[in-house]
Amino acid sequence: MFSGLSAFPLTPFADGKPDEAAFLRILRRLTEAKVDSLGVLGSTGSYAWLTRAQRRRIAERAVENAEAIPVMICIGAINTDEVLALAEDAQQAGAAALLLPPLGYQTLKEDEVFTLFETVTRHASVPVCIYDNPRTTHFTFSDALLSRIASLPGIGSVKIPGVPAAQSAANDRLAQLRDILPASVSVGISGDASAANALIAGCDGWYSVCGGLFPRVAKAMTDAAAAGDHESVRAQSERLQPLWSLFRQHGGSFRVMNAAAGLLGLTARDCLPRPLLPLSDADNQQIAEVLAALDLS
Amino acid sequence: MFSGLSAFPLTPFADGKPDEAAFLRILRRLTEAKVDSLGVLGSTGSYAWLTRAQRRRIAERAVENAEAIPVMICIGAINTDEVLALAEDAQQAGAAALLLPPLGYQTLKEDEVFTLFETVTRHASVPVCIYDNPRTTHFTFSDALLSRIASLPGIGSVKIPGVPAAQSAANDRLAQLRDILPASVSVGISGDASAANALIAGCDGWYSVCGGLFPRVAKAMTDAAAAGDHESVRAQSERLQPLWSLFRQHGGSFRVMNAAAGLLGLTARDCLPRPLLPLSDADNQQIAEVLAALDLS
Repeated sequence: MFSGLSAFPLTPFADGKPDEAAFLRILRRLTEAKVDSLGVLGSTGSYAWLTRAQRRRIAERAVENAEAIPVMICIGAINTDEVLALAEDAQQAGAAALLLPPLGYQTLKEDEVFTLFETVTRHASVPVCIYDNPRTTHFTFSDALLSRIASLPGIGSVKIPGVPAAQSAANDRLAQLRDILPASVSVGISGDASAANALIAGCDGWYSVCGGLFPRVAKAMTDAAAAGDHESVRAQSERLQPLWSLFRQHGGSFRVMNAAAGLLGLTARDCLPRPLLPLSDADNQQIAEVLAALDLS
Repeated sequence: MFSGLSAFPLTPFADGKPDEAAFLRILRRLTEAKVDSLGVLGSTGSYAWLTRAQRRRIAERAVENAEAIPVMICIGAINTDEVLALAEDAQQAGAAALLLPPLGYQTLKEDEVFTLFETVTRHASVPVCIYDNPRTTHFTFSDALLSRIASLPGIGSVKIPGVPAAQSAANDRLAQLRDILPASVSVGISGDASAANALIAGCDGWYSVCGGLFPRVAKAMTDAAAAGDHESVRAQSERLQPLWSLFRQHGGSFRVMNAAAGLLGLTARDCLPRPLLPLSDADNQQIAEVLAALDLS
């Protein structure tokens, strides 16, 4: 479950609601590419804009259509009782794992985040992945806290937000993480632009936004990493620089990938939940050019 | 509605749910003190932890028990449709105004925030107050955006997060705001520690956390400001320095005021929504000492 390519599909919107047909079109690309696992309703999957009922429905549809590929469902919410309810829904839907971001409204303290994970792992019957992404949660894990949480029974993986750009520093960071985490807990990279560095440094898997829309391209990278072909991993990521550059330009992958899905005709041209607005025509044009140049379709 | 003391009550929790009896006990203090308005379900009122049904219920109970004092209800949510539904609920409950924070999960753009306010004011039949607080929303208004939104029909006030500590700089900031805002739009201060500065600089009102639990103390300040007695405003705020200092020490007023409500016996000793945990015994002891020294009861 927690190694190789975990593809994170979008949840496209149409008329203010999840566009189930478009979601299933995207999911189909991922099952056909035989990704190793699916990460549904993550940040990329717009969980934050969905009601509990909508999240349950997407979770059910994902598992039903996953062709036996294990599905991880994000259960992020600000209120702990809501998190537990979402965990129950996800498990009922057949989730193989749960992804848990520490969402706060007031800034959370380390003990509060620990207690959240302790509570959820105590209730859950499938493994939980720690979601570490200060950009969306505004919470920064210390290594001490990561270590403490990862030692809870029921924690299966840590989804880290990135590694340093220099390969030697990325290697050091991975070594540090291995030092503080139980051997049973996998480490997956999520920042797509630093995925190559992280995979070469020894990450077990890639929680990939890019792989949620372009699974073949992403799987070629994780397969090369698994085969120890670091040169190929590096070259493939280098080739995708124009895509990483778009992500940087637009403050992350989210808006770019939603635009790309629209440009590819998989979703409505505007598939973002409100209040988010579609990118400009000029931005769309630039994204279309990058997709064409990289042969991403 | 948008001037004088707007008191922001807590929504205390017990057993994971809003403690309605405790909420009404706190509300009673505010109506007895004849505060000028009530700001219910704000950040202080823990809206972020509540379901839509719980928010509707608290809004209804607040208006029913407000003794004809106008009630502003916060309608913050990440999804625009949810915001509109909350606006409808609040208006049905009898809200005199709506408080709208620009909540994002992905960082919002200026056009997105403008469109959100444009959409809500178009649907709403009561005035909307702009909630500007980067600490909770992670969105920073530019003056240009504030001006653009404030010019929408239906905007009644701006709730600003603070003013500079030096009185002359605070005066300059208020003058700047008056310059860019329509005369019909009031300016209210919300950072309690800088309320005196802001009131002396000419803010129309105080959106007050302190006033949500200690309305007499806060009302004495807004009354003195209305009477032009700046020396008294300054002296009263100076006397409350130990309280402002507790706010700084605990990353804001939220945890301190929830602890204070418990110490005063208005709520359960632990009245925070999970995953938030109560403060330590030592912290509670320190807060109790400050309350006693300042004669806050």
